[in-house]
Amino acid sequence: MNLPLFCPIPISDPERIQLAHGEGARLTRRLIREELLAAFSNPFLAPLADAATLPDLGGRLVMTTDSSVVSPLFFPGGDIGSLAIHGAINDLAVSGAEPMYLSVALILEEGLPMETLRRVIRSMKDAAQACGVSIVTGDTKVVPHGEADQLFICTTGIGRLRPGADLGAHRVRPGDRILVSGTLGDHGLAILGSREGLEFGDQLCSDSAPLHHLIAVLLSSGANVRFMRDATRGGVAAVLHELVEQSGLTARLYETALPVSPAARGACELLGLDPLHIANEGKLVAVVAEESADAAVAILQSHPLGIHAAVIGEATSALPPQVLITNPFGQLRVIDEPSGAPLPRIC
Amino acid sequence: MNLPLFCPIPISDPERIQLAHGEGARLTRRLIREELLAAFSNPFLAPLADAATLPDLGGRLVMTTDSSVVSPLFFPGGDIGSLAIHGAINDLAVSGAEPMYLSVALILEEGLPMETLRRVIRSMKDAAQACGVSIVTGDTKVVPHGEADQLFICTTGIGRLRPGADLGAHRVRPGDRILVSGTLGDHGLAILGSREGLEFGDQLCSDSAPLHHLIAVLLSSGANVRFMRDATRGGVAAVLHELVEQSGLTARLYETALPVSPAARGACELLGLDPLHIANEGKLVAVVAEESADAAVAILQSHPLGIHAAVIGEATSALPPQVLITNPFGQLRVIDEPSGAPLPRIC
Repeated sequence: MNLPLFCPIPISDPERIQLAHGEGARLTRRLIREELLAAFSNPFLAPLADAATLPDLGGRLVMTTDSSVVSPLFFPGGDIGSLAIHGAINDLAVSGAEPMYLSVALILEEGLPMETLRRVIRSMKDAAQACGVSIVTGDTKVVPHGEADQLFICTTGIGRLRPGADLGAHRVRPGDRILVSGTLGDHGLAILGSREGLEFGDQLCSDSAPLHHLIAVLLSSGANVRFMRDATRGGVAAVLHELVEQSGLTARLYETALPVSPAARGACELLGLDPLHIANEGKLVAVVAEESADAAVAILQSHPLGIHAAVIGEATSALPPQVLITNPFGQLRVIDEPSGAPLPRIC
Repeated sequence: MNLPLFCPIPISDPERIQLAHGEGARLTRRLIREELLAAFSNPFLAPLADAATLPDLGGRLVMTTDSSVVSPLFFPGGDIGSLAIHGAINDLAVSGAEPMYLSVALILEEGLPMETLRRVIRSMKDAAQACGVSIVTGDTKVVPHGEADQLFICTTGIGRLRPGADLGAHRVRPGDRILVSGTLGDHGLAILGSREGLEFGDQLCSDSAPLHHLIAVLLSSGANVRFMRDATRGGVAAVLHELVEQSGLTARLYETALPVSPAARGACELLGLDPLHIANEGKLVAVVAEESADAAVAILQSHPLGIHAAVIGEATSALPPQVLITNPFGQLRVIDEPSGAPLPRIC
């Protein structure tokens, strides 16, 4: 009988997470009441039941889920807490939904400093408030020291589908324009710089941000939007490969049109990375009908999160379906899906 | 610059999870299509969008979330996959909802054998099918070897509140009866036995099971049900402490009435554990009005998951509010909340 597993020597420092915080009893209840309920306070969460009872949404339901395992937990421009909220908000928003409710499940490593958890909770609280959504239910588990790295968060979001929303790769037509809402690669490069202590770290900041207001403005403008995604893991390239696979069309980009900040461009050149392959956490990729493109860009640019919005390419019927880019000299090259040098725990 | 982190030497064995399975690109898409979509196939998941678009629920929405971090992944009577499904189903059902849709977020450790993942996915698929719910959206992250232990699952469930459902500690009155749907402690003892290689391991099986059909039968019988919980972490004691705290009433139990299997009783005596403190994964605690109690027990006993259902105590107005138990000699003793020897990763 392996006694150390059965009766682990508990970490008794009250300022660190203990296994008993995950046992479902007194310490769990205290953690939930004093840290989580106190921060996320709302009438749906307050009963602390096994599930939250919510109003009738009065429309079609949209549901998304995301685990956040980013490392480090805190990075220039954000942290795992705000990232976990923004990720759920953005997945709902690009699906044509108004984000309404979130659940939060925490997996904590024994020994995690309570102050680290508090910082993350504060950040989640602030992000949820700023987004106008409520964290209505949650779960907390603790695993022994060494069996997880500090803190993982799983957020699930639900929202109501906007009436009339009709989005999807099946709606994209040759001639449609491909837009992005701003500069590319900032999140991934900021994480990389922060993790590796690279010099450019100071100039690069994550773009982690909630896109639902920007998207609401775009959709209610009447622009003929066919397809939307937020360009996270795998960057814009992964979104476009998905589009190509689902639509059977080719995505043709113009290299000179890609909005990339000077700091990001410098970092990409130094490291041999392509900004199209790098993760963002607050960048919209939208495909809009050709006749809507100029107006859509102007609308995006009028919003603080869309200042650098641009048309970066178009959908064509060229075969085989692939992602192509035209360089400044007019030469075409194929953009592969990212797959070579993985950058783990980017989000 | 820490090159090994930036460019990890990839695990290239195709029969193991690689970091690239979490990069959002080709290997991620293949994993999702060939393993997850193939198993969970349904029209809501099939578009593989960032979120699932679902019908109007036509009623009040209930939402719950749970992380599963159980160790070992496979144990007598179940595994982390079925457990993750049952946990969400049960949290919805005890809240008076009909479970409808689930999301599944996986956190995988680099190097996890693909066959282990496949076994877990098959188990989730079978459990969801048996429960009549659809897995409509998901997420997959991979963390480097050593930064998580094999596999964690976060399931979030949504359902529609049953019309007329009115459950909660506030509805409990002195004289109400406390029922359980079957024997206590089986899940926790099975995990413990399996993890530690104890001899009793063979005789004890997890009770992991979905309770929504049992609960539907009970609720539609017209029994006056006030409060329900599934007794998971912290066991029946944790549920009753929550009830006592929220209702201001005392829970008084009869030791001779507790259904405990001979194997579980033997294991508890050997290890000095109290079956009231041990986790279950398929046991309902219900408080019903006194006049409904006998009928409610009979209804539960008529269902395969409720054969050993019993009245185990009652709510009283005795002060201070606490959880008390009467032993066979008529002596009263206080049941504390479990807090001493934590048993990590029980669920």
